[in-house]
Amino acid sequence: MTTDEARDPETHEGLTAFCPRFHQAVELIGRRWSGAIVRALLSGETRFSDIAATIPGISDRLLSERLKELEVEGVVERHVIPETPVRIEYVLTEKGQDLADVFQAIGQWADTWVTPPAPKRSRRSA
Amino acid sequence: MTTDEARDPETHEGLTAFCPRFHQAVELIGRRWSGAIVRALLSGETRFSDIAATIPGISDRLLSERLKELEVEGVVERHVIPETPVRIEYVLTEKGQDLADVFQAIGQWADTWVTPPAPKRSRRSA
Repeated sequence: MTTDEARDPETHEGLTAFCPRFHQAVELIGRRWSGAIVRALLSGETRFSDIAATIPGISDRLLSERLKELEVEGVVERHVIPETPVRIEYVLTEKGQDLADVFQAIGQWADTWVTPPAPKRSRRSA
Repeated sequence: MTTDEARDPETHEGLTAFCPRFHQAVELIGRRWSGAIVRALLSGETRFSDIAATIPGISDRLLSERLKELEVEGVVERHVIPETPVRIEYVLTEKGQDLADVFQAIGQWADTWVTPPAPKRSRRSA
């Protein structure tokens, strides 16, 4: 174990052991509900009530808070459309749209490796 | 706005508005420090002290806790090597190794979109 020796820090196609930008990105995406919200927007939802309806268990207050955070991060834009009544739409910025590749990769990994939540009934389909 | 009409829920290559497995996956990866820890392991670190050294600001207690969680999730394996003194190595399982694609995608996104932390000095390079 030669921890002091200079060793190749890249064993996975250029992944260094730590990167502050990566760290910031992964924690932005992974913040509770943020991933689900961005996914809903990527899938085409634009209205608060529709986004809320797609995410089981999220409260309006938390959704509102997360949307504001994503706006501050430059991932989401809030459009106010001057109709009567005023209509609000949430859309992904280019930065947000660019997360599609990340979400595809996570989705593929999840399909392979994450066990879906157990169904309510205890019947097993062997 | 015809929210009640059946509309195409897929605007991004098969992304549905919500998926429990995706949700579980993104929150596993995004849990505070977990992304950084998996990245350190992907980059080839195996020893507790080396992983700790690559992640600025993580405490030993938190690293230990996160490693246990990742072990429970089946992402990390803890190997006890019977030397004197006993050597412990943390390695990614196949499930963990498979996160490399996800991390590459996040890394690319971060390179494009995430501003590195501002330097301590207030000098601006216009």
